[in-house]
Amino acid sequence: MSDFTRADGRALDELRPVRITRNFTTNPAGSVLVEFGNTRVMCTASVEEGVPRFKRDSGEGWLTAEYAMLPSATHERMPRESMRGKVKGRTHEISRLVARSLRAAVDLAELGENTIQLDCDVLQADGGTRTASITGAYVALADAVAYLERQGVVPGKPLLDPIAAVSVGIIDGHPCLDLPYEEDSRAEVDLNVVMQSSGNFVEVQGTGEHGLFGRTELDAMLDLAQKGCAELIAAQKAALGWEA
Amino acid sequence: MSDFTRADGRALDELRPVRITRNFTTNPAGSVLVEFGNTRVMCTASVEEGVPRFKRDSGEGWLTAEYAMLPSATHERMPRESMRGKVKGRTHEISRLVARSLRAAVDLAELGENTIQLDCDVLQADGGTRTASITGAYVALADAVAYLERQGVVPGKPLLDPIAAVSVGIIDGHPCLDLPYEEDSRAEVDLNVVMQSSGNFVEVQGTGEHGLFGRTELDAMLDLAQKGCAELIAAQKAALGWEA
Amino acid sequence: MSDFTRADGRALDELRPVRITRNFTTNPAGSVLVEFGNTRVMCTASVEEGVPRFKRDSGEGWLTAEYAMLPSATHERMPRESMRGKVKGRTHEISRLVARSLRAAVDLAELGENTIQLDCDVLQADGGTRTASITGAYVALADAVAYLERQGVVPGKPLLDPIAAVSVGIIDGHPCLDLPYEEDSRAEVDLNVVMQSSGNFVEVQGTGEHGLFGRTELDAMLDLAQKGCAELIAAQKAALGWEA
Amino acid sequence: MSDFTRADGRALDELRPVRITRNFTTNPAGSVLVEFGNTRVMCTASVEEGVPRFKRDSGEGWLTAEYAMLPSATHERMPRESMRGKVKGRTHEISRLVARSLRAAVDLAELGENTIQLDCDVLQADGGTRTASITGAYVALADAVAYLERQGVVPGKPLLDPIAAVSVGIIDGHPCLDLPYEEDSRAEVDLNVVMQSSGNFVEVQGTGEHGLFGRTELDAMLDLAQKGCAELIAAQKAALGWEA
Amino acid sequence: MSDFTRADGRALDELRPVRITRNFTTNPAGSVLVEFGNTRVMCTASVEEGVPRFKRDSGEGWLTAEYAMLPSATHERMPRESMRGKVKGRTHEISRLVARSLRAAVDLAELGENTIQLDCDVLQADGGTRTASITGAYVALADAVAYLERQGVVPGKPLLDPIAAVSVGIIDGHPCLDLPYEEDSRAEVDLNVVMQSSGNFVEVQGTGEHGLFGRTELDAMLDLAQKGCAELIAAQKAALGWEA
Amino acid sequence: MSDFTRADGRALDELRPVRITRNFTTNPAGSVLVEFGNTRVMCTASVEEGVPRFKRDSGEGWLTAEYAMLPSATHERMPRESMRGKVKGRTHEISRLVARSLRAAVDLAELGENTIQLDCDVLQADGGTRTASITGAYVALADAVAYLERQGVVPGKPLLDPIAAVSVGIIDGHPCLDLPYEEDSRAEVDLNVVMQSSGNFVEVQGTGEHGLFGRTELDAMLDLAQKGCAELIAAQKAALGWEA
Repeated sequence: MSDFTRADGRALDELRPVRITRNFTTNPAGSVLVEFGNTRVMCTASVEEGVPRFKRDSGEGWLTAEYAMLPSATHERMPRESMRGKVKGRTHEISRLVARSLRAAVDLAELGENTIQLDCDVLQADGGTRTASITGAYVALADAVAYLERQGVVPGKPLLDPIAAVSVGIIDGHPCLDLPYEEDSRAEVDLNVVMQSSGNFVEVQGTGEHGLFGRTELDAMLDLAQKGCAELIAAQKAALGWEA
Repeated sequence: MSDFTRADGRALDELRPVRITRNFTTNPAGSVLVEFGNTRVMCTASVEEGVPRFKRDSGEGWLTAEYAMLPSATHERMPRESMRGKVKGRTHEISRLVARSLRAAVDLAELGENTIQLDCDVLQADGGTRTASITGAYVALADAVAYLERQGVVPGKPLLDPIAAVSVGIIDGHPCLDLPYEEDSRAEVDLNVVMQSSGNFVEVQGTGEHGLFGRTELDAMLDLAQKGCAELIAAQKAALGWEA
Repeated sequence: MSDFTRADGRALDELRPVRITRNFTTNPAGSVLVEFGNTRVMCTASVEEGVPRFKRDSGEGWLTAEYAMLPSATHERMPRESMRGKVKGRTHEISRLVARSLRAAVDLAELGENTIQLDCDVLQADGGTRTASITGAYVALADAVAYLERQGVVPGKPLLDPIAAVSVGIIDGHPCLDLPYEEDSRAEVDLNVVMQSSGNFVEVQGTGEHGLFGRTELDAMLDLAQKGCAELIAAQKAALGWEA
Repeated sequence: MSDFTRADGRALDELRPVRITRNFTTNPAGSVLVEFGNTRVMCTASVEEGVPRFKRDSGEGWLTAEYAMLPSATHERMPRESMRGKVKGRTHEISRLVARSLRAAVDLAELGENTIQLDCDVLQADGGTRTASITGAYVALADAVAYLERQGVVPGKPLLDPIAAVSVGIIDGHPCLDLPYEEDSRAEVDLNVVMQSSGNFVEVQGTGEHGLFGRTELDAMLDLAQKGCAELIAAQKAALGWEA
Repeated sequence: MSDFTRADGRALDELRPVRITRNFTTNPAGSVLVEFGNTRVMCTASVEEGVPRFKRDSGEGWLTAEYAMLPSATHERMPRESMRGKVKGRTHEISRLVARSLRAAVDLAELGENTIQLDCDVLQADGGTRTASITGAYVALADAVAYLERQGVVPGKPLLDPIAAVSVGIIDGHPCLDLPYEEDSRAEVDLNVVMQSSGNFVEVQGTGEHGLFGRTELDAMLDLAQKGCAELIAAQKAALGWEA
Repeated sequence: MSDFTRADGRALDELRPVRITRNFTTNPAGSVLVEFGNTRVMCTASVEEGVPRFKRDSGEGWLTAEYAMLPSATHERMPRESMRGKVKGRTHEISRLVARSLRAAVDLAELGENTIQLDCDVLQADGGTRTASITGAYVALADAVAYLERQGVVPGKPLLDPIAAVSVGIIDGHPCLDLPYEEDSRAEVDLNVVMQSSGNFVEVQGTGEHGLFGRTELDAMLDLAQKGCAELIAAQKAALGWEA
């Protein structure tokens, strides 16, 4: 173990540099550029009066999300999904994860019959695009909720405590925090964790396609994830100008 | 807590009755009807010589999977995906989960350049369709590998140790094993676990859309899942006529 | 001619063994597994209040049908239509045939503004899947109508006399009843007949892709079809517990 | 019966005026405008060297067909199928019928590895568009085969005896030949027959959505169809300048 | 320059023979066959009460257009867009051009809440299909507006002054009017101009994929286009029986 | 006329502030952020060995382009084209314009059998997205060609003279250069011009949906466009570090 080092020199439990830029674009109610190292995602929150049919007359709002990669975001250009005429399973899966996760950060009853649409568009991909998306989307959501409150159209206080997400992997037997692409592609096990500032989990997804994992390894990975999410939530709060 | 009971009278750590019927249909190399209570899934494994383009000349085989619900499988009929012209995100997500999980049960190098296509078609849905699919698919896979071995077209011993899957949820604060639809729809937290006979995890997916969960609850749920998977693997072995 | 025999030893005018299992699944109002030899089709009838837009305020109900093959139903697995993103012409054609035929077995005015959706999903294909679908669908329809009557939501007596369907083909010059796949694929002429218990025709479709046919041959095939449909209708009545 | 008259004054066994115009357009190898009264269909036969993959190296050619309606062909404009992104079941069904029927008029082995693509585009619809399509397509096919023969690229004599198609219906109990839209929409029974000049059937499709039909009625309709097809084949021969 | 001649012997500033046939088909409110030499387009104008959602309660009408080629219109048959499941970019682009251009010929406020749908279906293509479409569509539009006026359903006088369109190209350095396919495919520069009878432009689209062009060449091409459009508008007026 | 002023205070012939940022992302061979005022487009040029089928064995390369808007780029969020399953006509039209224009800036024979794929993704839209796309794409193309030259895989000098594009409109009778959204939506006439550094035109597209335009107005608009393009080409050269 003593001789294992990461290509970018980070400690095993160290995040890549995190940058959160608010007001990245001006049209959406919330617009954030989030960077985890070289991974860069534009996260926006658009607001709309009214709710989809299945929520109508419920008195509650709705929040949904779409994740996508720009075709030139990856090292090798990927075909554009709109041109293929269908969305890949991976894209669907991540969109659903982002939506589910962020719904844990909003009280739909307090939101009233308004809809928030999150869009996470990956400008540059270097691993961890789904966790960066979730982390950035919370900040965009916070700005959008503040916008709605300034407009006076929300009946309550819809924004809940911050959530953030991070990946953990096991590489050559070593649990490592926040994997860039090069590590992600050779990790034996890959765990994505979405966590609230309370320390409770919103989502835990561990996959061992290149190897199985036991309870001990799962515990070690969860410990790293908890540390990483806590740091990301601190970065979110700093970006939002909230007390530490 | 003492007065919490399940609608079907099961203990909190008790599986629904499990039935695994091999040779359910005759055309595919493996064909299994798996039942978890009222959930019934037809799992087939079809074999084909050759591999998809991205695996060509690798010397390795490939395994893929598709999950789908018949339109009349659910209480309220659902539109047929082929008629809608696109596959829902949920379907994609489960297909990917099944494929990823079962690839942990096969050694692609030992398989040689052959492809195994799993199809999990839900005839009747009552919760746990994805875990039943994985559990049944392993048995269909075992039959298909045996068929390939009888044909003499696999270079090695591709079948690995059994894997099975089960759901766990927290209902009114109580961790419960193997949720039927009625429980699933009101669970605060939902965990799907895919496990190998070794006790190691292949996949852990925990989601708290109606509530968050802490480490303690996660641990309790993992304990239940481990118990459930062990019993399912025993049922698989019995169905396959393997030593207990 | 004296030495022509069928591979399965049947007489030229003999049906394959027919099995009709009601209540095959529990969610739809009617659910039937129909078997013509090795051909097995799950036929369900789902009910819904209201009618499609083009029937609204007509006072009449509606009946529609979808036919599909599971990908592993055939000897060689076929691509799943939902994944291809479009439905094949053959599937469309049979769905339309099933719907048209079963509308001859229901009085839409007596049904009131309710919709019955038939689904015929082929679990195992060995020729005659469309005729088995129609034959099984009548039984599922009967159960669904009975369900609606028990609910008290139909104004009249919508169920009409039984209809059934069978295929006939000419093989090496011999008219044969109820062709399995092996015979179907080499028949010179293929005739599908849908008939009512009255002996009247609902639909007659004769095709001579591998050879033409004269009036004499058509007459001989229609005779066989009439005999076959009469026997199938007897089997439907027996399954439904109706007087012979 | 004595007081039944048709809106256009025709006898019950009389065709509408038939016009067959060859060389309607100049790019395809065969191009025909066929008119059955107000129904007008442009039928073209395009030729291409080579065959689809499933016929490659068979030494045989292939023939396929597509049928479509221009959006403004019907009284009320219909949405364009290319804009809807999918082809209707009715369109698929007729395309398949046209292809199947015309394959009875060509010897694929004599054609050699060439492909003939028929296109039947309805410019104006007034009933009988599928039968007019088949009737016109034979003439376009004949011209295309002659073109291929002039090019010296067919090994044999691929063109077989003429085929033609006509509709028959029962209206107020009266069998009537060649139904325009107004009659077609209220016919109790509708029969489409494709016949060869030999008097043998290529295809017989009878449908009784608004009423059933017995053997006697079927026989009466087949008699009318035989008379109609014989007259259409005479018109084809005249258009092609063949001996009567 | 003295020795440059066109394949069809026309002067550089000479149109191909133009034919405009009204009432080409009978179902749409306006139906025109327009021919520019061998290019033949069926242009129809269908009318419908009411307007699309985005125009509802505006008091104004709407006009839209779809352009398409029949698959056999070109020398080499092109795949049918409905079968491909999507419309090509070129088709979209021309449909938009036709709609935009013809909206310059109708006063939507005077039209009231009625919709006019133009369909331009190319029966035979030999260059200039988009300009022929626009030129023919004006005549179909005029007939459709006259029909609406006869029905008494338009509040005002919606038809504006005639518009027509023509192509100009530079071939071997020579500006030429109204290019057939053979010239179009080798032109260095291609200009499509839509013009009103007033001499004002509706649309000017110049493209230099095989070569750039300067102001002088643009001016020369615009001169030719103005001459061509004036002649086409005279032909439209003659076809409509308007004073010269 | 003396009292006409633009909302942002610009002179009628003044561009918005132009910023061109190279190396905006790191994966593609060329990656540029181009800003025309508040319009921001990420333009990338990805390179690939080999050419599409229709160019194979031609010895020439290929260049293609795709334009798209992020859903949150506009003031009101637009549905994502990949989720709708089809690309809008406007998107197709602009993609084709960008590709056609940039092919005027590259010598495909000098490029050898390599493909350059341009992607223009609009991050923020405020009018002129297509002209900004073309202007930025040239810079990305220049970087990609330089990359290919450094790799030693191009046989010649494929990059041609710079091209740039700008919009001009007529607002309340005044020709104005480089329209933001607010001006664009109320312009009577809209002209997009693509020009080479030589002063020659690559593409001229003028549209008068809200009003026609005469030769005099066209001339005035072309003058403005020529001035604007010259300035944009100077900005491109500056960004590329080329001599003024």
